Amino acid sequence: MTHLMTVLVLQLAVIIVFAKILGWVFQNKLKQPRVLGELTAGMIIGPYALGSIHIPALHGSLFPLPDTTLPVTPELYGFAIVASIILLFSAGLETDLPTFLKFSGKGSLVGLGGVILSFILGDLVTVLYFDDVLHFMDPKALFLGTLSTATSVGITARILSERRKMSSPEGVTILAAAVLDDVIGIILLAVVVGVVKVETSGDGIPWGEIGIIALKALGFWLISTVIGIIVAPKLAKNLKRFKSMDMISIISFGFALFLSGLSEMVGLAMIIGAYVIGLALSQTDVAHDTREKLLGIYNFFVPIFFTIMGMMVNFAAMKGVLVFGLIYTAAAFAGKIFGCGLPALLAGFNIKGSLRIGAGMLPRGEVTLIIAGIGLSSGVIGQDMFGVAIMTLLAASIIAPPYLIKTFQGGSGYSSKLKDKDPGDIHTIDLDFPGQKMADFIREKLLDGFRNEEFFVHKIDYNKQIYHIRKDEVLITLNQEDDKISINTSPENEAFVRLLMLEEVLDLKDFLSGLESMKSPDMMGADLLMGMFGVSSGTD
Amino acid sequence: MTHLMTVLVLQLAVIIVFAKILGWVFQNKLKQPRVLGELTAGMIIGPYALGSIHIPALHGSLFPLPDTTLPVTPELYGFAIVASIILLFSAGLETDLPTFLKFSGKGSLVGLGGVILSFILGDLVTVLYFDDVLHFMDPKALFLGTLSTATSVGITARILSERRKMSSPEGVTILAAAVLDDVIGIILLAVVVGVVKVETSGDGIPWGEIGIIALKALGFWLISTVIGIIVAPKLAKNLKRFKSMDMISIISFGFALFLSGLSEMVGLAMIIGAYVIGLALSQTDVAHDTREKLLGIYNFFVPIFFTIMGMMVNFAAMKGVLVFGLIYTAAAFAGKIFGCGLPALLAGFNIKGSLRIGAGMLPRGEVTLIIAGIGLSSGVIGQDMFGVAIMTLLAASIIAPPYLIKTFQGGSGYSSKLKDKDPGDIHTIDLDFPGQKMADFIREKLLDGFRNEEFFVHKIDYNKQIYHIRKDEVLITLNQEDDKISINTSPENEAFVRLLMLEEVLDLKDFLSGLESMKSPDMMGADLLMGMFGVSSGTD
Repeated sequence: MTHLMTVLVLQLAVIIVFAKILGWVFQNKLKQPRVLGELTAGMIIGPYALGSIHIPALHGSLFPLPDTTLPVTPELYGFAIVASIILLFSAGLETDLPTFLKFSGKGSLVGLGGVILSFILGDLVTVLYFDDVLHFMDPKALFLGTLSTATSVGITARILSERRKMSSPEGVTILAAAVLDDVIGIILLAVVVGVVKVETSGDGIPWGEIGIIALKALGFWLISTVIGIIVAPKLAKNLKRFKSMDMISIISFGFALFLSGLSEMVGLAMIIGAYVIGLALSQTDVAHDTREKLLGIYNFFVPIFFTIMGMMVNFAAMKGVLVFGLIYTAAAFAGKIFGCGLPALLAGFNIKGSLRIGAGMLPRGEVTLIIAGIGLSSGVIGQDMFGVAIMTLLAASIIAPPYLIKTFQGGSGYSSKLKDKDPGDIHTIDLDFPGQKMADFIREKLLDGFRNEEFFVHKIDYNKQIYHIRKDEVLITLNQEDDKISINTSPENEAFVRLLMLEEVLDLKDFLSGLESMKSPDMMGADLLMGMFGVSSGTD
Repeated sequence: MTHLMTVLVLQLAVIIVFAKILGWVFQNKLKQPRVLGELTAGMIIGPYALGSIHIPALHGSLFPLPDTTLPVTPELYGFAIVASIILLFSAGLETDLPTFLKFSGKGSLVGLGGVILSFILGDLVTVLYFDDVLHFMDPKALFLGTLSTATSVGITARILSERRKMSSPEGVTILAAAVLDDVIGIILLAVVVGVVKVETSGDGIPWGEIGIIALKALGFWLISTVIGIIVAPKLAKNLKRFKSMDMISIISFGFALFLSGLSEMVGLAMIIGAYVIGLALSQTDVAHDTREKLLGIYNFFVPIFFTIMGMMVNFAAMKGVLVFGLIYTAAAFAGKIFGCGLPALLAGFNIKGSLRIGAGMLPRGEVTLIIAGIGLSSGVIGQDMFGVAIMTLLAASIIAPPYLIKTFQGGSGYSSKLKDKDPGDIHTIDLDFPGQKMADFIREKLLDGFRNEEFFVHKIDYNKQIYHIRKDEVLITLNQEDDKISINTSPENEAFVRLLMLEEVLDLKDFLSGLESMKSPDMMGADLLMGMFGVSSGTD
């Protein structure tokens, strides 16, 4: 036991330090997503690379290959599993249901199109390429189809926000589509995990059982989501009795862990439970603080997750599937560009706008990795296909951002008949603060102000301070970087935003004036000044 | 693997929810330390109680007894190990070396006396009670001696702070003694873990080997601490290049994990490495923020740690050692009361003051549990002695607080010759804020103000906002509860404190005025007001 624990602690130490440093280098020096740095860290230190070097003092290597389906020990993998639950719980919490419902027309068309086409293409290329994959319902083909559906719009949101395009019709449609994308992707995963379990144990296509599993998955998802959404406000109200956001956030996370375990027990994937609890809580007033309070464990666990995923990449196993990897990646890209672009074209965007939306749906992230990890640990896909999933993710992360930036150059993406309102004219209010703590404080004051005015405030990205602030037709974005806050708004709402800011500032000044006078009941004034200059109090 | 992970996730879910709720009930309803609630949670849901109930869907119980020396699975114990490293890394970070050095005269006498006497008594009662424990150097006796030395002054600091006695001579002496107590206790653990490893493998007392191990332990401790303290400022400076406190805190924690693994590899206990890295960083300017940033993972992991410790209590194994447990607890108490009290008496305190100091050193906490866990997992002590350690901890946690409050009633604890300065006259400045976020912000501003004036700001308790603020002879304490801040200071320093507060408030007001004017380059004023009342801009 002691040896196991020593190895675990050393593994975590090496993982954390490498992940954090490479993540930083990728983000700040190479201008690439941090996730890529963390994945690369895993590939470098993992059991298929440096991690296999024999260390005499350890009587073995730091990352020895255990006798399980996975190349890491159960003790270490436990941290990756908890991390995946944190990731999906957070994704659920960040779900912007109101936007989705509001823009569900266009958004759901675009999201659904992307999921369906990329699923079909991902499955089909697998069937066509591999001789041992006989039909569309083959477990491996189904899994690779599911793998290609997941979108991660974090990168898109960041790029659009930097270019002040997040409130553009394309930006809003992408974010709405991403919600549907997540929901359908996760239900699809639930169904496929169930189907695969049945299929691997028998011959032919047991349509009856597949139907039952699909119904069970859908049923579990629907029932737990509905119960969740109904119970969540009451739960939030009861949790608030603890009067401690630490308590509330960690107990909520405890529920997410519990429903994750439960979904696994009924034959679905763990992350479904985590997502459902997050989704249910996303509409309560504890969602925001829960997310903020969980940031600490998020920042600790999530790099560990991506690094462990990188460690599972077996370069030797990938050699034989490089060509397939390229074909599969192309299929996955085509699935999103055409699957999302065509519905967008139908919904009133011109070709430029449709390409923008397709490009925005390209990036992949944690969900792709989690699905790949589930496939690997359950034996449905081998290390070669895990490598293919990583290839697709890397390609999307590298290609999508510059492509997205390029498509967003030039004029409106709306077709002419919709051009009555020019959505391109956005005013920006920039604020510089003397320090980040000050900026953080004022940002929270402002967001509270918006919430009090019954705006719905939605944080777009877990680690970046980018917010969508919305009520009816009004859409405002707030973006904080270090000690700078910039607020984007349409010209007609600028006056309202400035007034709100002024209110908050005046409020603060009022309070400080009170504090100032409160602090000097008997001490401030002449007495104090005399004291400062060494004159003892009471003279004169 | 999937089943292992499902069980782990469900175990963590149940642990987190129970630990948090029982911790809350103990703290807020029973007015007992939260730790007791978390330990109790573990005892209730553990493998020796409810956790052994067969759950059909799991094909077993939630907490089955594995075939190892510990009653929990390696996957779950990994979380407890990481938690213990967080605890000791934090303890190191919180070490108040300047206070220790300043008050080292009295403090080291008191700390040393307490450690020596409780070690001797703890060891002796074991030798006298058990027929199979033959001499003072028996591994079991040495371990129980070490177990009885650890003090946890968190409870004491909280009680003294609530009663405004923390700046009293007794309070300062207790805090200084606790530093020495930690340091010696951890070196002692290092030596004993080494000695025990040698002794269990042979007969008689191998004095030569014990000497070598003691030297090795001391050497590793001294060398790593000295290197740590020398390298830490440079390390902190380099880490600051990342310009992200998240990075800095998590990489620092990565180093703590690494040195923990290293200490285990050289034959010492893991927590020594964690403590050394914390101690080294405690004197750098990243210490404060590192602690704040790690609060998220601290709040997640630490309740898990205490709950898992509670789960290891085997009630059946404890039945036979209840009498010994009482004797051992009495010996441990006597060790602190007389071991700390007598040196205090010599150092100029009267009997009342000496009893106060002895009472303040009674509480035990995480270090006792970590040592007991090391003993259990290495097989030096059995489940019966683990139970005894828990008994002592529970007794101390329940008895110490009311006893401490009682001793602190009445007059000065100084003997008459030292009464030239009356340390009992302490002024309090109370501030009420309209919300906790505001109070947090102002607190940080004030503490930064003190730091700029070259005060040393020391957070006493990880989870409570209680600070010691010190420069030369000036000692100020700041205590925040929710939206209330109260500052205790001697009358002669009150003017300075009020001035500093005023400065910070004026500074903030200045900044807000700037913000207010900055926000209205062209929009604020008549235009805006008209806009508000529905008059379109531009009309007269």
